[in-house]
Amino acid sequence: MGKYTTLQTPMGWNSYDYYDTNVTEADVLANAAYMAKHLKPYGWEYVVVDIQWYAYDTASMRDQFQYIPFGRNEMDEFGRLLPCPEKFPSSAGGAGFKPLADKIHALGLKFGIHVMRGIPRLAAHQHLPVLGAEETADMVADPASVAEWNPDMYGIRNTPAGQAYYDSILQLYASWGVDFIKVDDICSTGFHPHRGYGRKHEVEMLHKAIEKTGRDMVLSLSPGPATVEQSWHYSRYANMWRITDDFWDNWDTLLDMFTRCEKWQDHVRPGCWPDCDMLPLGKVGKHFGHERDTLFTKDEQKTMLTLWCIFGSPLMLGAELTLLDHWTLSLLQNEKLLRLENGRFVSRQVLRHKDTCVWAAVDPKTGERYVALFNLSETAGKIAISPAECAAAFPEGWFCPEEGTWEEVWSGNQSDKIGGEVAPHGALLFHRS
Amino acid sequence: MGKYTTLQTPMGWNSYDYYDTNVTEADVLANAAYMAKHLKPYGWEYVVVDIQWYAYDTASMRDQFQYIPFGRNEMDEFGRLLPCPEKFPSSAGGAGFKPLADKIHALGLKFGIHVMRGIPRLAAHQHLPVLGAEETADMVADPASVAEWNPDMYGIRNTPAGQAYYDSILQLYASWGVDFIKVDDICSTGFHPHRGYGRKHEVEMLHKAIEKTGRDMVLSLSPGPATVEQSWHYSRYANMWRITDDFWDNWDTLLDMFTRCEKWQDHVRPGCWPDCDMLPLGKVGKHFGHERDTLFTKDEQKTMLTLWCIFGSPLMLGAELTLLDHWTLSLLQNEKLLRLENGRFVSRQVLRHKDTCVWAAVDPKTGERYVALFNLSETAGKIAISPAECAAAFPEGWFCPEEGTWEEVWSGNQSDKIGGEVAPHGALLFHRS
Amino acid sequence: MGKYTTLQTPMGWNSYDYYDTNVTEADVLANAAYMAKHLKPYGWEYVVVDIQWYAYDTASMRDQFQYIPFGRNEMDEFGRLLPCPEKFPSSAGGAGFKPLADKIHALGLKFGIHVMRGIPRLAAHQHLPVLGAEETADMVADPASVAEWNPDMYGIRNTPAGQAYYDSILQLYASWGVDFIKVDDICSTGFHPHRGYGRKHEVEMLHKAIEKTGRDMVLSLSPGPATVEQSWHYSRYANMWRITDDFWDNWDTLLDMFTRCEKWQDHVRPGCWPDCDMLPLGKVGKHFGHERDTLFTKDEQKTMLTLWCIFGSPLMLGAELTLLDHWTLSLLQNEKLLRLENGRFVSRQVLRHKDTCVWAAVDPKTGERYVALFNLSETAGKIAISPAECAAAFPEGWFCPEEGTWEEVWSGNQSDKIGGEVAPHGALLFHRS
Amino acid sequence: MGKYTTLQTPMGWNSYDYYDTNVTEADVLANAAYMAKHLKPYGWEYVVVDIQWYAYDTASMRDQFQYIPFGRNEMDEFGRLLPCPEKFPSSAGGAGFKPLADKIHALGLKFGIHVMRGIPRLAAHQHLPVLGAEETADMVADPASVAEWNPDMYGIRNTPAGQAYYDSILQLYASWGVDFIKVDDICSTGFHPHRGYGRKHEVEMLHKAIEKTGRDMVLSLSPGPATVEQSWHYSRYANMWRITDDFWDNWDTLLDMFTRCEKWQDHVRPGCWPDCDMLPLGKVGKHFGHERDTLFTKDEQKTMLTLWCIFGSPLMLGAELTLLDHWTLSLLQNEKLLRLENGRFVSRQVLRHKDTCVWAAVDPKTGERYVALFNLSETAGKIAISPAECAAAFPEGWFCPEEGTWEEVWSGNQSDKIGGEVAPHGALLFHRS
Repeated sequence: MGKYTTLQTPMGWNSYDYYDTNVTEADVLANAAYMAKHLKPYGWEYVVVDIQWYAYDTASMRDQFQYIPFGRNEMDEFGRLLPCPEKFPSSAGGAGFKPLADKIHALGLKFGIHVMRGIPRLAAHQHLPVLGAEETADMVADPASVAEWNPDMYGIRNTPAGQAYYDSILQLYASWGVDFIKVDDICSTGFHPHRGYGRKHEVEMLHKAIEKTGRDMVLSLSPGPATVEQSWHYSRYANMWRITDDFWDNWDTLLDMFTRCEKWQDHVRPGCWPDCDMLPLGKVGKHFGHERDTLFTKDEQKTMLTLWCIFGSPLMLGAELTLLDHWTLSLLQNEKLLRLENGRFVSRQVLRHKDTCVWAAVDPKTGERYVALFNLSETAGKIAISPAECAAAFPEGWFCPEEGTWEEVWSGNQSDKIGGEVAPHGALLFHRS
Repeated sequence: MGKYTTLQTPMGWNSYDYYDTNVTEADVLANAAYMAKHLKPYGWEYVVVDIQWYAYDTASMRDQFQYIPFGRNEMDEFGRLLPCPEKFPSSAGGAGFKPLADKIHALGLKFGIHVMRGIPRLAAHQHLPVLGAEETADMVADPASVAEWNPDMYGIRNTPAGQAYYDSILQLYASWGVDFIKVDDICSTGFHPHRGYGRKHEVEMLHKAIEKTGRDMVLSLSPGPATVEQSWHYSRYANMWRITDDFWDNWDTLLDMFTRCEKWQDHVRPGCWPDCDMLPLGKVGKHFGHERDTLFTKDEQKTMLTLWCIFGSPLMLGAELTLLDHWTLSLLQNEKLLRLENGRFVSRQVLRHKDTCVWAAVDPKTGERYVALFNLSETAGKIAISPAECAAAFPEGWFCPEEGTWEEVWSGNQSDKIGGEVAPHGALLFHRS
Repeated sequence: MGKYTTLQTPMGWNSYDYYDTNVTEADVLANAAYMAKHLKPYGWEYVVVDIQWYAYDTASMRDQFQYIPFGRNEMDEFGRLLPCPEKFPSSAGGAGFKPLADKIHALGLKFGIHVMRGIPRLAAHQHLPVLGAEETADMVADPASVAEWNPDMYGIRNTPAGQAYYDSILQLYASWGVDFIKVDDICSTGFHPHRGYGRKHEVEMLHKAIEKTGRDMVLSLSPGPATVEQSWHYSRYANMWRITDDFWDNWDTLLDMFTRCEKWQDHVRPGCWPDCDMLPLGKVGKHFGHERDTLFTKDEQKTMLTLWCIFGSPLMLGAELTLLDHWTLSLLQNEKLLRLENGRFVSRQVLRHKDTCVWAAVDPKTGERYVALFNLSETAGKIAISPAECAAAFPEGWFCPEEGTWEEVWSGNQSDKIGGEVAPHGALLFHRS
Repeated sequence: MGKYTTLQTPMGWNSYDYYDTNVTEADVLANAAYMAKHLKPYGWEYVVVDIQWYAYDTASMRDQFQYIPFGRNEMDEFGRLLPCPEKFPSSAGGAGFKPLADKIHALGLKFGIHVMRGIPRLAAHQHLPVLGAEETADMVADPASVAEWNPDMYGIRNTPAGQAYYDSILQLYASWGVDFIKVDDICSTGFHPHRGYGRKHEVEMLHKAIEKTGRDMVLSLSPGPATVEQSWHYSRYANMWRITDDFWDNWDTLLDMFTRCEKWQDHVRPGCWPDCDMLPLGKVGKHFGHERDTLFTKDEQKTMLTLWCIFGSPLMLGAELTLLDHWTLSLLQNEKLLRLENGRFVSRQVLRHKDTCVWAAVDPKTGERYVALFNLSETAGKIAISPAECAAAFPEGWFCPEEGTWEEVWSGNQSDKIGGEVAPHGALLFHRS
């Protein structure tokens, strides 16, 4: 995992859920300004530009393609993609993302970009030179390694010249001031024989390239699902890895996340975060052609945030921040909830039945603890658990089994029991110092 | 299967096993001349030029690549591949394979070529026009459909413009006088979700394109293994389909072919041939960098030919014909053996044990019949079978169960029993009119 | 397939869909009497007693089990199951099914029974003798071969003593006058490593045991799905094999049957019938605890019958015959429809789109032909096809492509085109001599 | 994992590799006496009686069966298996394993037994009562849950009566003084749909039953391979779980263990041990019918022990201890090696190439550390690694990257580098306090 030493779990905003391939510099800056003002005090800090910032004509053939095949991209003479100046005017003249990153940094925030694994296909077909290598792009690119869903790149061979290409783009990103890269088509690759976690060597090459820059950058791997069997490898070479395919605002995938978190519960620790994916809150979908309010009910939104936080997932907002309503904003400003992201808690699923799920988290050093009760069914119902049952999920001595007074985080109510009536698809979150 | 009406199972020669990607016009003509003189009287007639006849620099990076990635290919302005004039001088000036095909035809033989499924990748990246369509190559090519093992092409979308591209190349081939096309990366495609028989629409498009030319062309699909569940589709739209991955001269894959033939035994009929792949006989492997005599023993060679013939597979010689020794040639001139390829026989596996396999074939109209005894073990042993046991594998009345005199095809010996000592990995073949 | 020589595809009645495990002698006789009177003239002739005729207390623990584990079964001293005399009074005193079979035969009908593959588990645990063998049942039974869904039997080892056990039960069935056995847990076995068609040797043993009896008995294998790759084996050793898991009255499984028939279309011929399973018509489900009318609409019922007949599946009624209404009975008395079951037709799927499917059948000797148009969508729509398109699915010369007058079988209407408005989930069937 | 609190990784002896199903009380006592005298001072303490201690006639049909189907077992009136008194005379009269356990304890050792998951099949067929439940064995047993390889038991349903059965046997074992149970057919079950870790509820029931006894018992699950995705479940409910199918003395499976350890490296901690299975050392195989010396070379034996120890696997000797030679014994008395089993070390694979593998372990509290160099190839070769490379595999600050003096554990040599010539299939193990 390199030299990443921050305890805090990454929290921020990502352009994809609202803007698809089409976000512009102005959009990014507007969201960053909102974050600096309303969210930064609560821990939110990353501003991430998602896919195809290098592409022209994005969204012009929406009825046929999300990604236009063999379309026009901005690329330098070494086959390195650059921001499309039509969407990011400040990048013109070779400035790249540096001007934008500078502005983000000036707001006290951090700047991230999305990267497709590999080298542009056209660089290979055009035999472009690779910076720092004698071999040209056609020798670096693997013609059989393509993404199932995106036409832009070829995967990179596990050779010194391949490493040189990755070094060349990471040096560029470091020179721009990038703090976070979300690398795509790498955590779960679609095609056999690369299926599953099939390009491990490219993860290692990215890790090395980041280390060589000397800059702290979060390495985030997409899409999921990651495979638990390789948890040791994700942990060693990356910081975040998606445990699910793209997550959107429907209950079935939210319900499914409970099973995913169950499997990954032993693998969360600072610098090593299984990632439940973006939070589709507020307004989403505009540049997919159908702007809408999140389809999640308020209870489902609280359930989602409760699960992400007690599990310890990174939090990336998939919303147009400037359009957030007051109620949604209040969720994102709940300090007691977000305390779970401070990197000091260990969490476990306590029980899982068809209609009920209970998780607990504890700070082993201080004994501070949380218990979340989830109602997965379609009808309201009472759920209760004893501290002793929670304690049984942890090593002896961690979670104090004694009774006492608890505060329910969403309502602020005090209680001497962990339990209560829970709404359909809803959650209660109890806290005790 | 279109209008293909010949009963005879295809028999011929293919350049691959000896020449790999590197066969030249002179090589083809030398083999054709030999065939015309020594083999044509026995039914051998197809001369097939295998893979990358359009590529320059073939075999120049043998230590790294069989197929040079992003290499130079000869292509016309409509993205149609043409013979590389350095290897096929008579093709220069836009003549294509017509001059060569004419010479082959003049010898009384038929001419075939290998074709990779799809459209050249560079045609897509260059947005070339497609003959007969308004859409350009970038709209015809599917960027996610690549071969696992060859870097030249993209698969074609199931659209009218896609059909137009296939029509355009088949019209070209028909104008050259092509009688046989071996289409590759189509019978079994490597990548999920196209894995297995994953590009059925391209087979149908090829079938339609052939029908539109009005010319009889054998449509042969590679590589294998084909999937039995789709036998109805292969039968309807193609003439030959490989039931195995590339077959070479080692016993394990020959032994494995018995299992493949067992599964496909109900699916052989004129115009619809499950294909056991080329016969690696005589000299092979030269342009792979290691010319050698076939690694099969003489007994194994007879076993191979016996199985291919009694099963009813097409026969394609993978040998340099001009270097055939007398003994090997004699195998290929065995009229009683090759009679099994006349399209009148129905064959069945009679029994299969670990060390023994027996097949029988019968012409239901005349009662003429064959029985093959195979010794799959490492030691010589006696094998015998009664006509009644063979008869039980066929519908009642087809295979006459009465005793009588049989001729063993390889030795010419007469016998009143079907049986005898069989060499390790060897075969006996009994015939009775 | 043994010596089975009847051309006619099997048609009859089976007790399962209405009676589950609980059918009695009186029920069977009532259905047989109805069949003899109303259906026999149209080709219906088999009366089949389905599962657990040997078991006591059937249906007494319905809320927990369909098959009571470790329950009481009627068994002789050689471990052979006998009819439970509480359900089949005439079987008492060792008479077995002979008295019942005699009555069925006296009605001009044929008698069939269901058989679980294997030997009763208790026979093995009790070390009972096996008739005709020195080894006892504990040596014949394979303790790792159990059904996934039924607790009664162990599979049988591939040994002479195992064959002796199968011989002993088939001799018993032959002595009773059984004409049809439906063997279960054998066409698709549930457990790896026996998964799929995992007990081929038991099929071969059953085939041999039937041959030894000298009696014509249809060998029907359940449940499905059968695997196309083993079609040669089913064809050689059995007469019918299920291509689907249990089929019930819901549209999704009926829709799915089109895909199954597509895959099996090349494998139908007299004595070798891929089997689409029972027809859930009229009243069904009573002894499952919820008697009901079939959930299929009238159009879906016609679609089902049209598909089963043009494909060439056996027809087994899953209905209480004595409760059939007039409309349903009329379907089963449609002579022109049922003519497709006479064993003289070859059929092919002509085309398959998302919403439409067309099949054609032809008698290659007489040229008589049928075309079925299926509307798989939720809305009515016009479907039409030319004779030439149908002809392309057959070998040249079989299906006459000329225009002419056709009769629509369900309505009796004449037309010079094959086509018309088809109801949602409905079918039209055209016929021309 | 219950209340298991010992840091020390379990080390002991198991009867299987030498005695198969046929070990006797005298054999067990002889091995225990040897252990107490020669091995106990080095940490070896468990004496485990493996499979079918309840069965009569074991090994009497060796040529056909390892486990005689439907054979005779010793069982009480509640369907609980008891030691066969012919093999364990002190168990007669209902004493069970108590007398033997007492003798083992008197030697300062701990006593373990093997248990097949489930309830005896015959108990179900005989409808025996279950202690503490109203339901009888036929309602507790699941007739579809059988082992792929052993005929004795049915799995147990997830019901209160099922829990009562498990409670009843664990109470019995606790009353005997059992310290360790190795439950079989539960860590990886063979049959779909129970395939993989398919009987989780039986693990939870066993865990509960052990907790109810109030006695510390190690819960060890077999056979492997366990599935990494369920590591959280194994960790919570069991103490040891096999990561491999039965391990024997051949190099290929030893080589394969490196891949297994790689995958499980993040999941080793006190009370939660992924288990590499028994050590086939010294004499093995006698009651399998072929007594022999281990087929491992001396170098391979050292490699095996080095890997097991640096990974942190439990160590169970599969040898006849009384026949150990001096050299083998010396391996088992290597204090510096066995120190790795003290529960204080965290270990990681540092690198893995085709021919080389390096692991490192560190005690994060003291900084004491080990590095193992493995030569996986067929030829001797030099391997070296720097402390800095090892340190990169751990969180910052754990493994000190500075240079210094190391001791090679097998030879006792001192060196200032981690490296040296390593024999084919051999290992070096470096230590530094």
